[in-house]
Amino acid sequence: MPVGTRGAVKGITMAQLDQLGAEIMLANAYHLHVRPGDEEIALAGGLHKFAGWSKPILTDSGGFQVFSLSGRRTISEEGVVFQSHLDGSPLHLTPESVADLQARLGSDVAMVFDECTPWPIDHDIAAAAMRRTLRWARRARDRFETLGSGPAPGVLRATPGQAQFGIVQGSTYKDLRDESVAGTVAVGFEAYAIGGLSVGEPSEAMYDIAGHTAEQLPETAPRYLMGAGMPNDLVEAVARGIDLFDCVLPTRNARNGQLFTRQGPISIKNARYARDPGPVDAECECPTCRSHSKAYLRHLFMAGEMASGILNTVHNLHFYLDTMRRIRKAIEFGIFEDFRREFLDAYL
Amino acid sequence: MPVGTRGAVKGITMAQLDQLGAEIMLANAYHLHVRPGDEEIALAGGLHKFAGWSKPILTDSGGFQVFSLSGRRTISEEGVVFQSHLDGSPLHLTPESVADLQARLGSDVAMVFDECTPWPIDHDIAAAAMRRTLRWARRARDRFETLGSGPAPGVLRATPGQAQFGIVQGSTYKDLRDESVAGTVAVGFEAYAIGGLSVGEPSEAMYDIAGHTAEQLPETAPRYLMGAGMPNDLVEAVARGIDLFDCVLPTRNARNGQLFTRQGPISIKNARYARDPGPVDAECECPTCRSHSKAYLRHLFMAGEMASGILNTVHNLHFYLDTMRRIRKAIEFGIFEDFRREFLDAYL
Repeated sequence: MPVGTRGAVKGITMAQLDQLGAEIMLANAYHLHVRPGDEEIALAGGLHKFAGWSKPILTDSGGFQVFSLSGRRTISEEGVVFQSHLDGSPLHLTPESVADLQARLGSDVAMVFDECTPWPIDHDIAAAAMRRTLRWARRARDRFETLGSGPAPGVLRATPGQAQFGIVQGSTYKDLRDESVAGTVAVGFEAYAIGGLSVGEPSEAMYDIAGHTAEQLPETAPRYLMGAGMPNDLVEAVARGIDLFDCVLPTRNARNGQLFTRQGPISIKNARYARDPGPVDAECECPTCRSHSKAYLRHLFMAGEMASGILNTVHNLHFYLDTMRRIRKAIEFGIFEDFRREFLDAYL
Repeated sequence: MPVGTRGAVKGITMAQLDQLGAEIMLANAYHLHVRPGDEEIALAGGLHKFAGWSKPILTDSGGFQVFSLSGRRTISEEGVVFQSHLDGSPLHLTPESVADLQARLGSDVAMVFDECTPWPIDHDIAAAAMRRTLRWARRARDRFETLGSGPAPGVLRATPGQAQFGIVQGSTYKDLRDESVAGTVAVGFEAYAIGGLSVGEPSEAMYDIAGHTAEQLPETAPRYLMGAGMPNDLVEAVARGIDLFDCVLPTRNARNGQLFTRQGPISIKNARYARDPGPVDAECECPTCRSHSKAYLRHLFMAGEMASGILNTVHNLHFYLDTMRRIRKAIEFGIFEDFRREFLDAYL
């Protein structure tokens, strides 16, 4: 899922995102609550209409932002009080209020409000956060079911048929992950995400915990690894049972001049590309590679031209989306292990 | 002509520029000489291939930049020595060297190297600059004809069939404009531009001098008013005989949140648009107006999203290009004066 935190994917328009073949976009309920406001978006007819994006939208709850953006927050059993990253005003977020605001946004998938822990963290603290996330999951699901059963005061339901995904926590402790899976599945959601990874732990730990967790989750529901990762991480995570990803790397790194290729990432600002007439990736079929040389892309980056960010973003998102298309095709043809080996041999 | 100073139009890609129906792009020979270098671009096969733009390109000579960017310059009969705006290194530009570097770029139209005066300016100084521009025009044309007659040492001619436009100077003094027209036409160019306007003088002075100058220029060659202007300036200048324009306003103002409409410009950051579900211009057929509301565009601008600059640029360039298409159609149908009155009544 390309990341459109504030209702826009950084570096491109919705029309360009659609042309790239993206099938779903991620937006962030917390960011949209702060600006322009979930009630404003509900009045506009929901996030799809507001942003001009008719395909599915998944809204992250803001749990990650609460624990990564704000130094000054007070967490209680009820929820979290913390200061807006925009103007410092106090914000009260609870499992119920976050479900409400996602109903107002009218996303197709709403993530529960969770307590996401940093890494490394003590077992006791990770356990407490995971168990609070479980209790919040129950409350979030209750509120979600209330919202789904008819009109609720103060909530304009912008789209019917919203799904809600639970989030498994527990840091890199397998016993905590086991407890979290059991408790989250007991509450029961349309699908399940693995949170609390891609927060600084080694790749092997991420792969290990993602695989250990995924194999316990229901086979009939998508499994979503939140916040991952590099292209090789996607391949390795799929090998361990993951279906769905979101990550800012393709867009953020594009703006910083890092371009992904089948032979690994390159930095377009490197002087070696100043006279390179070839495309970023000779096998790539994206609009950037079809029209522009590395020499031109380097010139745009060095000159600080906006077209640099646009063209790089188009390429990197195409690379990620295409990698997932290739993975799906390899699975359908029963040759995923061959694909995995060849991809990693070329990429790493 | 949308302005792509450094081989890219700020805010959009070449593919988007093409989709907007632009028929020619302006680039700047001085900027491209400084970075990435005209020799680099010649090695890449010329500016069309380098930038991925197959339609015509007009290159401005850099005369305007020499006199607007650099405080420390030394002007002589030979040419100009001044400091690069990038790194302060000394650059030597002469009428001949600028013709050479435009031949290396391979643009379709090369502007002569002129001395562009600020406004206001004394008659004597304006006269001296205009007469130097005339002498430089003779030298530029001689060099251009040498380049056209076969291979020249040190110049890789990237595209054949280049045209060269002369530039009429003389500030807001009609006697100087008359002298400049006569001298420039005596040298003989494929077409003629009016320089030294849109540099701070009142609109009425610009209209008056543009009209006075245009009516003396050959009817068989396009007349190009350099650096103008607002949409109403385009209509008024066409009424006075101008055919061709370049201006940074549609792109620069887009990034600053000013959007052009048939009822005049609006500032998208205005709070009145926070809940406005309508497009920027109800009659506009651009991709931005077809997909997005003013409320969304305001949100993107306030949040500092890159998509704001992209979508606003698409709209403003469409507005300018469409205004010129409407002007051409009105002329073809013999109803230009009706169009002019209706356009200005609605716009101003």
